[in-house]
Amino acid sequence: MIGYRFMGKAHSNAWRQVGHFFDLPVDLRLRTVCGRSAEVEDAAKKLGWERAVKDWREVVEDPEIDVVDICTPNDSHCEIALAAMAAGKAVVCEKPLALDAAQARKMADAAQTAGVPNLLCHNYRGIPAVALAKQMVEEGLLGETIYHFRARYAQDWLADPQFPFVWRLDAAVAGSGANGDINAHIIDLMRHLVGGVEEVSATERTFVKTRAKVGGGEAEVTVDDAVAWIGKLAGGGLANGEATRFAHGRKNQISWEINGSHGSLFFDFEDMNRLHFYDAGDPANRRGFRDILVTEREHPYGNAWWPPGHITGYEHTFANLFSEFVSVLAGGRGSFPTFEDGWENQKVLDAIRRSAQTRSWEKV
Amino acid sequence: MIGYRFMGKAHSNAWRQVGHFFDLPVDLRLRTVCGRSAEVEDAAKKLGWERAVKDWREVVEDPEIDVVDICTPNDSHCEIALAAMAAGKAVVCEKPLALDAAQARKMADAAQTAGVPNLLCHNYRGIPAVALAKQMVEEGLLGETIYHFRARYAQDWLADPQFPFVWRLDAAVAGSGANGDINAHIIDLMRHLVGGVEEVSATERTFVKTRAKVGGGEAEVTVDDAVAWIGKLAGGGLANGEATRFAHGRKNQISWEINGSHGSLFFDFEDMNRLHFYDAGDPANRRGFRDILVTEREHPYGNAWWPPGHITGYEHTFANLFSEFVSVLAGGRGSFPTFEDGWENQKVLDAIRRSAQTRSWEKV
Amino acid sequence: MIGYRFMGKAHSNAWRQVGHFFDLPVDLRLRTVCGRSAEVEDAAKKLGWERAVKDWREVVEDPEIDVVDICTPNDSHCEIALAAMAAGKAVVCEKPLALDAAQARKMADAAQTAGVPNLLCHNYRGIPAVALAKQMVEEGLLGETIYHFRARYAQDWLADPQFPFVWRLDAAVAGSGANGDINAHIIDLMRHLVGGVEEVSATERTFVKTRAKVGGGEAEVTVDDAVAWIGKLAGGGLANGEATRFAHGRKNQISWEINGSHGSLFFDFEDMNRLHFYDAGDPANRRGFRDILVTEREHPYGNAWWPPGHITGYEHTFANLFSEFVSVLAGGRGSFPTFEDGWENQKVLDAIRRSAQTRSWEKV
Amino acid sequence: MIGYRFMGKAHSNAWRQVGHFFDLPVDLRLRTVCGRSAEVEDAAKKLGWERAVKDWREVVEDPEIDVVDICTPNDSHCEIALAAMAAGKAVVCEKPLALDAAQARKMADAAQTAGVPNLLCHNYRGIPAVALAKQMVEEGLLGETIYHFRARYAQDWLADPQFPFVWRLDAAVAGSGANGDINAHIIDLMRHLVGGVEEVSATERTFVKTRAKVGGGEAEVTVDDAVAWIGKLAGGGLANGEATRFAHGRKNQISWEINGSHGSLFFDFEDMNRLHFYDAGDPANRRGFRDILVTEREHPYGNAWWPPGHITGYEHTFANLFSEFVSVLAGGRGSFPTFEDGWENQKVLDAIRRSAQTRSWEKV
Repeated sequence: MIGYRFMGKAHSNAWRQVGHFFDLPVDLRLRTVCGRSAEVEDAAKKLGWERAVKDWREVVEDPEIDVVDICTPNDSHCEIALAAMAAGKAVVCEKPLALDAAQARKMADAAQTAGVPNLLCHNYRGIPAVALAKQMVEEGLLGETIYHFRARYAQDWLADPQFPFVWRLDAAVAGSGANGDINAHIIDLMRHLVGGVEEVSATERTFVKTRAKVGGGEAEVTVDDAVAWIGKLAGGGLANGEATRFAHGRKNQISWEINGSHGSLFFDFEDMNRLHFYDAGDPANRRGFRDILVTEREHPYGNAWWPPGHITGYEHTFANLFSEFVSVLAGGRGSFPTFEDGWENQKVLDAIRRSAQTRSWEKV
Repeated sequence: MIGYRFMGKAHSNAWRQVGHFFDLPVDLRLRTVCGRSAEVEDAAKKLGWERAVKDWREVVEDPEIDVVDICTPNDSHCEIALAAMAAGKAVVCEKPLALDAAQARKMADAAQTAGVPNLLCHNYRGIPAVALAKQMVEEGLLGETIYHFRARYAQDWLADPQFPFVWRLDAAVAGSGANGDINAHIIDLMRHLVGGVEEVSATERTFVKTRAKVGGGEAEVTVDDAVAWIGKLAGGGLANGEATRFAHGRKNQISWEINGSHGSLFFDFEDMNRLHFYDAGDPANRRGFRDILVTEREHPYGNAWWPPGHITGYEHTFANLFSEFVSVLAGGRGSFPTFEDGWENQKVLDAIRRSAQTRSWEKV
Repeated sequence: MIGYRFMGKAHSNAWRQVGHFFDLPVDLRLRTVCGRSAEVEDAAKKLGWERAVKDWREVVEDPEIDVVDICTPNDSHCEIALAAMAAGKAVVCEKPLALDAAQARKMADAAQTAGVPNLLCHNYRGIPAVALAKQMVEEGLLGETIYHFRARYAQDWLADPQFPFVWRLDAAVAGSGANGDINAHIIDLMRHLVGGVEEVSATERTFVKTRAKVGGGEAEVTVDDAVAWIGKLAGGGLANGEATRFAHGRKNQISWEINGSHGSLFFDFEDMNRLHFYDAGDPANRRGFRDILVTEREHPYGNAWWPPGHITGYEHTFANLFSEFVSVLAGGRGSFPTFEDGWENQKVLDAIRRSAQTRSWEKV
Repeated sequence: MIGYRFMGKAHSNAWRQVGHFFDLPVDLRLRTVCGRSAEVEDAAKKLGWERAVKDWREVVEDPEIDVVDICTPNDSHCEIALAAMAAGKAVVCEKPLALDAAQARKMADAAQTAGVPNLLCHNYRGIPAVALAKQMVEEGLLGETIYHFRARYAQDWLADPQFPFVWRLDAAVAGSGANGDINAHIIDLMRHLVGGVEEVSATERTFVKTRAKVGGGEAEVTVDDAVAWIGKLAGGGLANGEATRFAHGRKNQISWEINGSHGSLFFDFEDMNRLHFYDAGDPANRRGFRDILVTEREHPYGNAWWPPGHITGYEHTFANLFSEFVSVLAGGRGSFPTFEDGWENQKVLDAIRRSAQTRSWEKV
């Protein structure tokens, strides 16, 4: 694993845990974690890795390593992934896959050439309620036509202008702000659940233009604080979305709703063990959104964890996804987002950014 | 109508409104309101009555009056109702019907003897969500066996010890406190929805023993501030309830839940347009409480008011109930609580009070 | 009052009720209702009017009438209002005020010329929770800067393709569909709470192109079934909205959220007695959206109706607004939307429609 | 660790995880798991233990083991714990501690004699929202007087009469049913948050008298399916509680509410990352239950896990508690329930059972 901060912590946990809860076809070994600073030694111990190195090339070249997991800032994803795949490693990469669609395409092509399993870690596909939603859409429970997909990803960690400057606010490192970081999740979930958008119109805001650096001085915020967009689904439906880090009181609210010709679904990540389903076919006097607590044995990933009503949390989404990936590593079947998805997602994100700049509708 | 304060306002409104929303078999005329103080003249105008009188006997003796509606403090219900029924009037009475079961029995007997329509105004039976619940229980949607009925009626208007002394805190006038005032609603709903209790064990509290009188001085609180009880349903199920005026933040929370062998229902008056229904027969992976917004044309009283999603409020519960009563007045059919229910309810309330005093289980 | 169907019923109710709950400076008399069909006689009786006429000119010319209330389909608002104001009547008009901004401007000008009180019936300003939100924004509780205003008005009465053709689906009569009918409420609330938008980008959909007529035959749907838009608030903030009649399970969900630099508010009409407020200034370990049940005496309109926790409904929004209007009729003060607001709202609605057609950002 | 099924899985997970998220003063090693069947070998691997044994005495006698964790059925807790403490081991025991208060007293005495750290695993004290509630009560945010404590623990796994017979339904092994298994959690939380009860009146039900055994044949259910009780808090307040496994739709709903003289708190385990707080001291027009998402750095255990809004689940409650225990193991400070609590809890559970049998109030 390359990188060991927030995402490194989440991935390490999932690698450690997945074998304790799922019946995996192979045993996992957490061989090496890589980071540029001296802290990586402590991180290795804390996160459960056998050893730590400072140069990611050591990881890529280690013949004992089968899977390289990339948890670094966004601008290094491409280089590391290409090298890892060239070395025949299976690759896991944090989202967003790349800084733009061209880079994403390059990575997807390399994955195809190398023929290695590749996982783009849109962990929210691993939410049991999302996996159940996917099943329900595929079974046709929402009807033949999807009228609406709408989503909002709202956080509030930047709403305070005193919050300091961090790498996520630097376009050169992060690529974009709310768009690539959190709108990316909306786009991936939309594509996963109801398919892609054909064209979009968007607007972005940077509400706080400069922020104090931790070490002193000011730095310019070169990414978007918030983005909102409207779009046309491939099937003709209407999509709209919003991603912001400026919504006081919303801590990690990724909420979405789908309205189809036979029913609706909605979800809110702050209450992530529930899925709400409205079936227009229920008897007229007792129709209503069903509040499904997605912790039953009959639910996706329900057998792996705890009894009904004993909820799981954020970290489990990674383990669920990794269980699918490990299954594929061993030659079995599994469902997870790939670099190809990363490219598709990035095309939408790029169109959204272009539209915000050109102030016109942009084709994806 | 005798009495013109809180309940008088609610009843007057319902009498005025019911004909505008329901197709009634007769026209209603708000003839006379009666009250002992000079304010009754203003009240008549404000509440829409043709004239005001100060002696309730004038109302009872007026040959032009067909229905006498009693909204006075609890200690006068019996005398007025007996006189009205003796005069051949149909009678509406606010709850609790009487100060105790003996008095209630006397009133129910008189109603039978007089053969007049009689409505005990447990208005919460007129909540569309409650009426829907009743239908669902009768259709067997909860299964053959009721395991649990539990309810709580919580308010907070007495939680502040500075709140002044009022008649509702005087046992001589009110009969009891939380028990007769709000637990009475729980008991009536329980009997309406799942049947009566056979025996109970209860406890009461008076948290604040004395309160300042508005005109000066202190008065002793001689009623219960809160009551909690456990009981055995006629069918063997377990009932438990609580009524309190000391629950900060709960303004008028009458919430109940029923668990049967095939499903569950729950309700909260603070969100009174919704009924929540769990059907154990739904497919295993999409079971969940349905959040039914009870405003559809297919719902009880749904045709009378507004389009779906346009909610009704507290006052509509009275109009809904009065529409049933007026139907019966005109020789038709209607469903509403009667003095007989008042007696049945009072027997339970008395058993609860007895149990709180004797500290033993009491048969109803 | 001209017109007596859904809105006529709601307005009549409010005219009848307002005097019973508010201390009005004048007495109201429901003189005449007007409608073109024979049913208007029955409606007069049902809705509480003294008499019925078939030609609206009779109403406008009646010297005993002081206020003309227009509840007709949208294409007749302008003509009637102009005539009524020319005759010196105070005017109430259902929303949307006009078919387009030019017509709205004409009406607003006429109101100014005539110097008569004029109320545009955006009744949702009369929701106590909305009135409280307005107070809180004005007191600065959300902070100096508004980052986001987002709203959704979702219904599902057209989601069923079998629903028949009605006048609201005919552009010649209704002007527009979801835009003028329900997005209009969003726009009015946005302007009321956080100010106007400067420019918008929008998209519309007509999901079901033709519908069966009640008398037989098919008719083309010439209005939008749904509209979504993004926009720039006057203060620089980001606005986005959506209005649809195709969201299964959403009966009358007008929900909005405001995120400011010091706090947030959200609201959902399906639970209209509540306002949710997040105060970023609360102690760090106990911040959270406050679920305010807006039924206290300290709340807007709280004294007029029932005790705390006894909720009010849809119809009360009209009575609340009318109480403000009657106050102004009598020379007092009151706050309500006027024809000037109608014009401002219509400019936004027109810009949204233009943008949906031109596929470019449109200035308001 | 002795025992490796549901609770063994939860405890093993916590032992594995706690060091990865908390800065512990010592390193943990998962030495031995013990179970009587052959499956224990697989369990050792799956749950992350170094080796497996079949006789619990081997664990107790192993000089390399410092802590013995008891996850066996309830009837063996006492014997194992006594032996472990006699051998100088620190002890962790699943709840309920014992089959009755006498046994619990024996264990608490032995712990005192041995002078070893002892943890009774009432894991719900480790819920961040519960820990926050504890802080708030201690800070006096609810006021000086507690009027009400009420709680309900509802599950539905036995509501289906076809569910087979398991050890939890056998009084000889389990001691009791809903009372010891889930009411025990209510009692522990009550004591933790607002103190003990002095006396109780209770009733129990066994709704389904016999169930099919997995291997064939029928077995009698000798424990309670549900229990409800009312009681008197040490401070005079009113307590009431209910525990049932027969509430369709309630998967693991442990909900409680506390009403004090200055505010209220409520909580529901099915939404366990939230705590709801009503502060009667808030300005009158904006009082309401605050919906606190307990995932901030300022919240208990908030630094150990994920960023705000990234929720934790059931399993984390164990790790949180173990982090406190490990701190004490190393001579530091920590807060967790002990065998002494087990005895106090058991006295209440015994009084509840006695009361259900004697049908009278029982002192604790």
